Amino acid sequence: MALIVQKFGGTSVKNAERLKNVASIIIDEYKKGSKVVAVVSAQGDTTDDLIEKAREINSDPSKREMDQLMTAGEQISAALLAMTIEGMGCPAVSLLGWQAGFETNTAYGSARIKRIDTRRVERELERGGIVVVTGFQGKNRYDDMTTLGRGGSDTSAVALAAALGADRCQIYTDVDGVYTADPRKVPQAKKLSVISYDEMLELASLGAQVLNNRSVEMAKKYNVELEVLSSLERLPGTVVKEVSEVEKLLVSGVTKDCSVAKIAIIGVKDTPGTAFKIFNAIAAKKVVVDVILQSIGRDGTKDIAFTVAASDADAALEAVKTLPDIADKKIECETDIAKVSVVGAGMESHQGIASKVFEALYDENINIRMISTSEIKISVIIDRDRADDAVRAIHDKFEPYE
Amino acid sequence: MALIVQKFGGTSVKNAERLKNVASIIIDEYKKGSKVVAVVSAQGDTTDDLIEKAREINSDPSKREMDQLMTAGEQISAALLAMTIEGMGCPAVSLLGWQAGFETNTAYGSARIKRIDTRRVERELERGGIVVVTGFQGKNRYDDMTTLGRGGSDTSAVALAAALGADRCQIYTDVDGVYTADPRKVPQAKKLSVISYDEMLELASLGAQVLNNRSVEMAKKYNVELEVLSSLERLPGTVVKEVSEVEKLLVSGVTKDCSVAKIAIIGVKDTPGTAFKIFNAIAAKKVVVDVILQSIGRDGTKDIAFTVAASDADAALEAVKTLPDIADKKIECETDIAKVSVVGAGMESHQGIASKVFEALYDENINIRMISTSEIKISVIIDRDRADDAVRAIHDKFEPYE
Repeated sequence: MALIVQKFGGTSVKNAERLKNVASIIIDEYKKGSKVVAVVSAQGDTTDDLIEKAREINSDPSKREMDQLMTAGEQISAALLAMTIEGMGCPAVSLLGWQAGFETNTAYGSARIKRIDTRRVERELERGGIVVVTGFQGKNRYDDMTTLGRGGSDTSAVALAAALGADRCQIYTDVDGVYTADPRKVPQAKKLSVISYDEMLELASLGAQVLNNRSVEMAKKYNVELEVLSSLERLPGTVVKEVSEVEKLLVSGVTKDCSVAKIAIIGVKDTPGTAFKIFNAIAAKKVVVDVILQSIGRDGTKDIAFTVAASDADAALEAVKTLPDIADKKIECETDIAKVSVVGAGMESHQGIASKVFEALYDENINIRMISTSEIKISVIIDRDRADDAVRAIHDKFEPYE
Repeated sequence: MALIVQKFGGTSVKNAERLKNVASIIIDEYKKGSKVVAVVSAQGDTTDDLIEKAREINSDPSKREMDQLMTAGEQISAALLAMTIEGMGCPAVSLLGWQAGFETNTAYGSARIKRIDTRRVERELERGGIVVVTGFQGKNRYDDMTTLGRGGSDTSAVALAAALGADRCQIYTDVDGVYTADPRKVPQAKKLSVISYDEMLELASLGAQVLNNRSVEMAKKYNVELEVLSSLERLPGTVVKEVSEVEKLLVSGVTKDCSVAKIAIIGVKDTPGTAFKIFNAIAAKKVVVDVILQSIGRDGTKDIAFTVAASDADAALEAVKTLPDIADKKIECETDIAKVSVVGAGMESHQGIASKVFEALYDENINIRMISTSEIKISVIIDRDRADDAVRAIHDKFEPYE
């Protein structure tokens, strides 16, 4: 008997009609003879509504009370989903995070799951019911409610699937799978039937926000087979799993990220420790640096450029400008740029992928500002207004190889 | 150091402005040096909104899931109130029913409190914070959420006050105390400063819905001093407690109940067992009978009349009409009647109260249809359109005696 964990996001359960649709997906699986555990987020805008209510009365509420407040959101959607399933004739029981055994650390607002005591869930499954669990939440050792932070429902589902030894964890969302590029921009983009954990991680970190990164990392760690699929269309989605060498795609996707800023510091002293000082100051501001480029030293000076998320640009500039040896240098900040990335597990064992990427951009007369590579990814920084052209050109160039 | 439990109903916490008002009441008490525990209901219409959401998807949801849904209501208001208090500079922590140690039986939707483990609440009070507890809810031995039924927040507050050995339990509501009659109808009505538990119980059961009856019974049982007062006006309210003989009022209140129906069965056989058969059949329909009147037998027959809540009239009629010896008798049902009652603990030791009530009605030319008395109460059934006149007349008659 298969054990399937199905996760439904806030849009999928936003009203009575959507709840009925989700219930019918769950019941279809249940009637195949599977044991089914559904993990749900709060309905539609509930989370934002609750945040707004809190802000009205306190501009800086404690995180403990915010978690106490926010966890009511999934409680409502889980109870409603269980009732919907009951109303359609199947036994169902809803469990809050703590009832389902989610134990977390004490980091209110961004807690980590420490352990899942699956006994209650298993008991309910044994009794033959469909189990609906609130995502995004647990309790800590003080018996306080905690939340896993935004996107945490994916993590809840994967962690529960791992703890239960589920056969598959299905993530239902408003897209029907993972594409080789954004289908709204690249008409030739194709849905992938299978993708590896590593490729999915690179794609997620590149802004293709289909799956929360933490949940993919956890799925990889515990070898949980994921499937991303649409709650509105009954079509197979994209399976994320460990793939064998022959299955590895040369290029699994081309993405762009337009929320990027590039900061360049011109003419810093070419001595040991310069880079350390700069990036240490930036890290102290909790800013994550992405691509780093350092020119070859000349006349005792060098240039250092790097990219950060556009929202972090001011904090990074501030950090850099406080450094004694740097403040007097010329510092440039550009935000009209984009990062275009090509991801493919097959890159590890194939040559010449980078040169094909550069050729595609050259053909389109797109200038490359910075380059960054990893085992399964090549990223280039280019002018933002050419980002869509770049994605299309690279996608076209690789299509025949798939 | 005084320990005060303060209960705030849904209207008192319905929006940000009201939450701030309630927070300032709590903080005033806290700054006097008291330990304060606030028990809150769900905000304004939250409970009804959640019921409506449930009905949209399932006309007959399970009680377990309804409780799982409904308990989110107080969770939201408790967290918001704690944040409001924090925002006004005082330490506060919200606790859900189960976190505050409320253990109930398994009767979902109308659970009874079995035990309160006060350790967490006491620990939070020791740490110097204001404790906000969700009313109306607890958990049962399966670790499921339960609700105490409507009006249950009063019971939560009284039970917690009893368990903590609180000095007083204040019930904040939208009226500022208990009056000798409805002040909108009887201009001379006065606010009582003190009333006994028994009088409060009679008034509550007579439709003066200031306090839930179960909570008054519990307060009496554990000798918890209650105070009913307004959350909008900072005025002393009415204290409910065990009163000494000399404090006992001759008449503490005059009330009316217009949701009454009278059913009369004419000419039933005057043999033993007739009354039993009738009222047994009615009890089987779970209908509570209030006043019963039986005529003196004549010609081997008698008439039996009784009153029930107007909403139960159809069920009672149905029960009576199925009885073999009764179905063929003349059965009358009147709904244009009202019950007017006079309550006063002093009645026990004073004569002539009943005759004064009847005199007041005679003076106003109001016909008495039925009469019922208890140790501290006299009720009369009269025509509904004279109910307000009757309340005023009786109130006027007794005023000088107070």
